[in-house]
Amino acid sequence: MSDDRRAPLDATVAGTLAGDLGAAAALMRALDDESPGAREALRAIYPRGGGAFVVGVTGSPGVGKSTLVSALVAATRARGERVGVVAVDPSSPFSGGALLGDRVRMSRHATDAGVFIRSLATRGHQGGLSRATSATVAVLAVAGFPLIFVETVGAGQAELDVADAADVVVVVTAPGLGDEVQALKAGLLEIADLLVVNKGDREGADRTLADLTAMLALGARPAPPLFKTAAARDQGVGELAHALELLRARPAGERAARRRRQAARQVVAIAAERARDRIATGLAENPALAATVDAVAERTLDPWSAADQLAEVLK
Amino acid sequence: MSDDRRAPLDATVAGTLAGDLGAAAALMRALDDESPGAREALRAIYPRGGGAFVVGVTGSPGVGKSTLVSALVAATRARGERVGVVAVDPSSPFSGGALLGDRVRMSRHATDAGVFIRSLATRGHQGGLSRATSATVAVLAVAGFPLIFVETVGAGQAELDVADAADVVVVVTAPGLGDEVQALKAGLLEIADLLVVNKGDREGADRTLADLTAMLALGARPAPPLFKTAAARDQGVGELAHALELLRARPAGERAARRRRQAARQVVAIAAERARDRIATGLAENPALAATVDAVAERTLDPWSAADQLAEVLK
Repeated sequence: MSDDRRAPLDATVAGTLAGDLGAAAALMRALDDESPGAREALRAIYPRGGGAFVVGVTGSPGVGKSTLVSALVAATRARGERVGVVAVDPSSPFSGGALLGDRVRMSRHATDAGVFIRSLATRGHQGGLSRATSATVAVLAVAGFPLIFVETVGAGQAELDVADAADVVVVVTAPGLGDEVQALKAGLLEIADLLVVNKGDREGADRTLADLTAMLALGARPAPPLFKTAAARDQGVGELAHALELLRARPAGERAARRRRQAARQVVAIAAERARDRIATGLAENPALAATVDAVAERTLDPWSAADQLAEVLK
Repeated sequence: MSDDRRAPLDATVAGTLAGDLGAAAALMRALDDESPGAREALRAIYPRGGGAFVVGVTGSPGVGKSTLVSALVAATRARGERVGVVAVDPSSPFSGGALLGDRVRMSRHATDAGVFIRSLATRGHQGGLSRATSATVAVLAVAGFPLIFVETVGAGQAELDVADAADVVVVVTAPGLGDEVQALKAGLLEIADLLVVNKGDREGADRTLADLTAMLALGARPAPPLFKTAAARDQGVGELAHALELLRARPAGERAARRRRQAARQVVAIAAERARDRIATGLAENPALAATVDAVAERTLDPWSAADQLAEVLK
């Protein structure tokens, strides 16, 4: 067996570690596709990525997350630091092609080699997206991007994933999205390290701030700091960027408990995703199981008993 | 072993099949909690639930899904039919308590015994919500509710779940949620059997309708029918309800292919969720695996290799 066959991504990994962005992009694609050597490549880079600071940015559609991230990127670039952006779109499970708007909003950084932007959309199921996000963050962290924003629509599993992947979670809302119960669900409040009311120049912004402050006062835990921004006009972004830098400057010891919780969830998620892939592939490849599915479709068998049969056959 | 121990939910199942709503609610709770006998109970009721027509209603936060469902419920009740509503909230993974707004919007039906409303929020992960939704629908279907609305925020896994559980998917949007790229992602368009622009009395509604029509014209498949409603004023709801009835009247043969696809996905989802539970429990119960998680948290081990170790130990 030649060395090439044993570690086909060695050169790509070395290039990534040397800060070659072409190599980093190739490595991300290889990880996405689970190319030969992908696992070894991840194993090689992961231990070196602990120094990057990962900021999750989440919130409902239409609150201006991409515009806010773009403004935070500009603030980062103004102080000369390189920055990575991972834009995760869990609401495009079928086409994977709905990130046009995000790309437009990010276009001010399109020609800046100090900014690396990667869009990810679901392929089939959530687990794959979570895996792709972790892998992309791991590559950016070793390719010379000490600050990484992970932007995702806040709903369901995606916000758990962002909380698992990030050192700090920024939850964004905006006025005019219907009442606050709808616009900012309790689950989002609970994962927020910082809270932002974006589109703060719009009518109703102060009402939204007041409503949020009241909601937070009712909460069990100390309220996260609240910011008002108008990212499209770069208003309030400096204050938010400064708050992020203060959190980033915390000693590593303060982040240890969080990182352990995250590690446990990440490991379970990866193992669970592999189990799911094995099950889906097993069902597709085993013609005997087709009759089981037919029976469920015809309601002569319930899906829970069918899952038992599936687990038994694939054991 | 007494009969009581062998089938502890027999009486509850019998009550549910006889249309006793207290029994149905008790059965739902028992299924949620995975009480002893839950599996047998599902096995007993599932084959009898094939006649119910399940309508999924999904869309971004703030488009007025609950108000629209409430208006559709009123239209159903006006013709004397009983109707079930399952309100699924995947954006409350931690607290499970963000459905207050939905309950307020549904309150016009609170005293009507012909309407059964059940709210579900995630507990920990998406799979559990999907399972709880299927089980709730199965109970409603045999408890005398021939029409069931499943309302969920459209994002990520949740919209796949609603597409898997429903005979028809209604995708709802509204004007004023930011641009259409944000407000109605491609993934949602692709699962829509019917499309609704709600809040149709608002400024920009006709622009939203025109934008959607243009987007749909670009799509690969035939465009789904498009409706304009103002659910809060009961406008346009009759037309939508009529369209649903036409789809409901289709011969069962036309739904067979869809039901088979759904059955396959449902069985995989259940089996995958069980695998995930086994993994999470295994990690929590095996102290030897704590060191593996610590190593990931300290970045001396990558999470992918840790997942391999986990799978090996739990095999």
